[in-house]
Amino acid sequence: MGALRLPALTSIFTSSSSVRSSPAIFPLKHRLRLPLRRPFSAQSTTEKVVAPELGDGKGKVVDKEKDRVITPRSQDFNAWYLDVIANAELADYGPVRGTMVIRPYGYAIWEAIQEYMNVKFKETGHSNMYFPQFIPYSFIEKEASHVEGFSPELALVTVGGGKELEEKLVVRPTSETIVNHMFTQWIHSYRDLPLMINQWANVTRWEMRTKPFIRTLEFLWQEGHTAHATAEEAEEEAMQMIDVYTKFAYEQAAIPVIAGRKSRVETFAGASTTYTIEAMMGDRKALQAGTSHNLGQNFSRAFGTQFTDENGQRQHVWQTSWAISTRFVGGIIMTHGDDAGLLLPPRLAPVQVIIVPIWKKDNEKAGVLTASSSVKETLQAAGIKVKIDDSDQRTPGWKFNYYEMKGVPLRIEIGPRDVSSGTLVISRRDVPGKQGKVFGISMEPSALVAYVKDKLNEVQSSLLERATNFRDSNIMDVSSYDELKDAIAQGKWARGPWSAGDEEESKVKEETGATIRCFPFEQPEGPKKCLMTGNSADEVAIFAKSY
Amino acid sequence: MGALRLPALTSIFTSSSSVRSSPAIFPLKHRLRLPLRRPFSAQSTTEKVVAPELGDGKGKVVDKEKDRVITPRSQDFNAWYLDVIANAELADYGPVRGTMVIRPYGYAIWEAIQEYMNVKFKETGHSNMYFPQFIPYSFIEKEASHVEGFSPELALVTVGGGKELEEKLVVRPTSETIVNHMFTQWIHSYRDLPLMINQWANVTRWEMRTKPFIRTLEFLWQEGHTAHATAEEAEEEAMQMIDVYTKFAYEQAAIPVIAGRKSRVETFAGASTTYTIEAMMGDRKALQAGTSHNLGQNFSRAFGTQFTDENGQRQHVWQTSWAISTRFVGGIIMTHGDDAGLLLPPRLAPVQVIIVPIWKKDNEKAGVLTASSSVKETLQAAGIKVKIDDSDQRTPGWKFNYYEMKGVPLRIEIGPRDVSSGTLVISRRDVPGKQGKVFGISMEPSALVAYVKDKLNEVQSSLLERATNFRDSNIMDVSSYDELKDAIAQGKWARGPWSAGDEEESKVKEETGATIRCFPFEQPEGPKKCLMTGNSADEVAIFAKSY
Repeated sequence: MGALRLPALTSIFTSSSSVRSSPAIFPLKHRLRLPLRRPFSAQSTTEKVVAPELGDGKGKVVDKEKDRVITPRSQDFNAWYLDVIANAELADYGPVRGTMVIRPYGYAIWEAIQEYMNVKFKETGHSNMYFPQFIPYSFIEKEASHVEGFSPELALVTVGGGKELEEKLVVRPTSETIVNHMFTQWIHSYRDLPLMINQWANVTRWEMRTKPFIRTLEFLWQEGHTAHATAEEAEEEAMQMIDVYTKFAYEQAAIPVIAGRKSRVETFAGASTTYTIEAMMGDRKALQAGTSHNLGQNFSRAFGTQFTDENGQRQHVWQTSWAISTRFVGGIIMTHGDDAGLLLPPRLAPVQVIIVPIWKKDNEKAGVLTASSSVKETLQAAGIKVKIDDSDQRTPGWKFNYYEMKGVPLRIEIGPRDVSSGTLVISRRDVPGKQGKVFGISMEPSALVAYVKDKLNEVQSSLLERATNFRDSNIMDVSSYDELKDAIAQGKWARGPWSAGDEEESKVKEETGATIRCFPFEQPEGPKKCLMTGNSADEVAIFAKSY
Repeated sequence: MGALRLPALTSIFTSSSSVRSSPAIFPLKHRLRLPLRRPFSAQSTTEKVVAPELGDGKGKVVDKEKDRVITPRSQDFNAWYLDVIANAELADYGPVRGTMVIRPYGYAIWEAIQEYMNVKFKETGHSNMYFPQFIPYSFIEKEASHVEGFSPELALVTVGGGKELEEKLVVRPTSETIVNHMFTQWIHSYRDLPLMINQWANVTRWEMRTKPFIRTLEFLWQEGHTAHATAEEAEEEAMQMIDVYTKFAYEQAAIPVIAGRKSRVETFAGASTTYTIEAMMGDRKALQAGTSHNLGQNFSRAFGTQFTDENGQRQHVWQTSWAISTRFVGGIIMTHGDDAGLLLPPRLAPVQVIIVPIWKKDNEKAGVLTASSSVKETLQAAGIKVKIDDSDQRTPGWKFNYYEMKGVPLRIEIGPRDVSSGTLVISRRDVPGKQGKVFGISMEPSALVAYVKDKLNEVQSSLLERATNFRDSNIMDVSSYDELKDAIAQGKWARGPWSAGDEEESKVKEETGATIRCFPFEQPEGPKKCLMTGNSADEVAIFAKSY
């Protein structure tokens, strides 16, 4: 390529071994100009492995910088999304079509999700464990709708240790079948119930249209699996877990998802009921961000997962499964990001505060760096995720743009005058320009910590509020099919009463491209008439185009 | 089977919803008698899926308990190992030959390892990330000795989405090849170095002889991968990481590993040098418990991973990789376990303290349970991993055996007399009978917390000391091949000077079954003569039979 690269994450985010010659210069004006990077979308979309070019061979790679502007979000949402992922170094394409390498900055967001979820799962009585990823092909065939749903997407291992296998193995697309095979061996009596487990794992689905984070051949997720003695308990569990996901979305990811029930057509292959959280992305498409399935006895009947109840009767267990995946990272990017790049909710941001020391003269440098380090230590000790970028190979202006593009919620600037006055400057990523900038914040540790925590909370709430307003102004209540078509044509979500059948649902999809995202749990009161048939309807449904 | 099962972990380890009728009775005497469980070794060793039997269909599964004694360790080490894994519910066989389901109690040990390692990896400058598990077959062929080492063990995906693939895909056995493919795209200048990453992942190796945790078709591990500008830095990194592993083994797992360098024959396929930690199991076989490889420029040359140095010259990067896996859990079992079952080092134990409330009469129960809960809360608040087993379906004696078998380091007993005197009884898992039992410990929170922490440290040190003594008394210094053969025949490790060639090394293996485990870093001083050739030797090597 020979194109110019941002410094590797490791060199930026680790301690400063690279303080070199030229003093940094503070530019008065800076726009979103970033070093050119080959756009994500242009990279290895086939399985061919292309040897990357090697620059000009003269060691001038870094010096030959070209500026590059991220495609504006409003101009081309998809190009913007891929640009952000590439420039912020969230992910890269793997050598096999449709696979993705999750880079450290992207993976750290996933780790923040894991950390939160792990606590919630344990609080709600689940234990982590691990099932093998190879599943005998015959397992997949046992549950009729499951095999129908998954067989087109399977990756199959047919050779092991140099020999053709007698039975081909499925690389797990999801684990209900192998889980039930094991549950059948572990569950005997009602005393063994409920059995509530979770695993963090990779899964493989041979998708034809892929998109980083949103839909990849292999992705990371957690899958919870539970077995219960009664239908009621399973239903309660399925609802409990969609509730955990909903709270996570609102409180951590600042994404105002709409939780509800899937239509029969959109229900998970093998489930009795699927609950979902649906998020509105910046282009107003819906993203299914998490699901919780009440599996009824579908898998327990297929696998003979039975228990002896208190009366000595053999019964099939009632089950649930529920999952969120690295797709959620894509949801965060597409909910909050803007023309300047990524914008991360503070509670999931790998770096919550970036400190940029600013000096013009060499004799100012030491003082500024000392003050910056001490601020860093203060914040770190208070549990805030903070980094300094004290490299002098980049101007402060370049750094401002860079960390804005990386979505760091708060920036602290410390210059020579700040050092003398014992103050610093704080800028909010979500409020551009002077409006989001406050001068003269005291460096006094306890005051500073309180101020920063407060600001982080403000950014967190403001992201949720902004996304909620955006969502609400883009949902139209409709009472006829014409109104629905109109809403979808405008790129909005349509919400209207629905009691029509699967066929009418398919018709809507064919004619408008929209599907029923869910029957939301929150329903308007009063009598309703189906927008399609005019018959009475119990519920409104939300229709939207989706990822 | 119809055989009897221990209660599921979830029901034992979660809160007590199951306080029922019959008061528990305290038996004066208890031996290691546990409910019969189908031995691990008898289970699904083929890929055939056998529908499990369903008990007697009369709900009497739990009531029909038979007692079963874990095979004594001294009698049959392998049978003991499998019995412990089955009875302690650490793991179970998966449906595909050689695969393993890691059950919650076993997985929690792995999580404790992860938690420690993650902190150390980050402290030493590494970031977590994730690479796809599917690797184009052509990648594996690029590094000559790598393909030779791994090709017999590969699982191949040949079908995806219903179609035969143009290029078959390898399910990663390790990731050096795909890592280098990506590094080649990310590394351009010396400023991008060092690049230091780690991933937690599953890997697949088509092993013929499998054993739970020790060698399975699929296992979990972390693999670190780094790229450096100089050979010296890579060597330093490889040494740093074997050092991290060594400290972990000693300080957390209480395993006195011997760290050293592998012989050329035993070096990782593709590495220049392999460093290893070798642990002595209870049967005196060696277990390779972790490795750190200096890869030199082997992979960077194969994949063209180059950077432009400070003088503008293109250079190949110098690399390392290093890994520990779920095999370590097997190492912990086989190092510390005894005839009573598992024995876990407190720092890795999922449950550090088990509280067993004891009452005879119904009117004693409430007081005992209240005191037990309050002790539990006290310890929990101090960061100690503590559980109560207040179920009244089992006798205290049964529970004593059960948690001894599960390897819980400390047991607290609280009876009616303890409640009146405000004291309790503490027993150490590692010191059987009365010797390990202390009466009259005060329930006063700060005193109790200090006492328990102290005891946990004592158990931790004592396990390390015991294992170190065992190790040292089973290594023989040898100065001739006859002495070596004698040591190996006695089941011991032989340590002696070695400067002979690969051929002599193979001869030793053929004739004694022992291999060079390592040239230990700690070397005796003074001149040495090769035990095989009589030529002068720089180093002693350790020979042993191994897993």
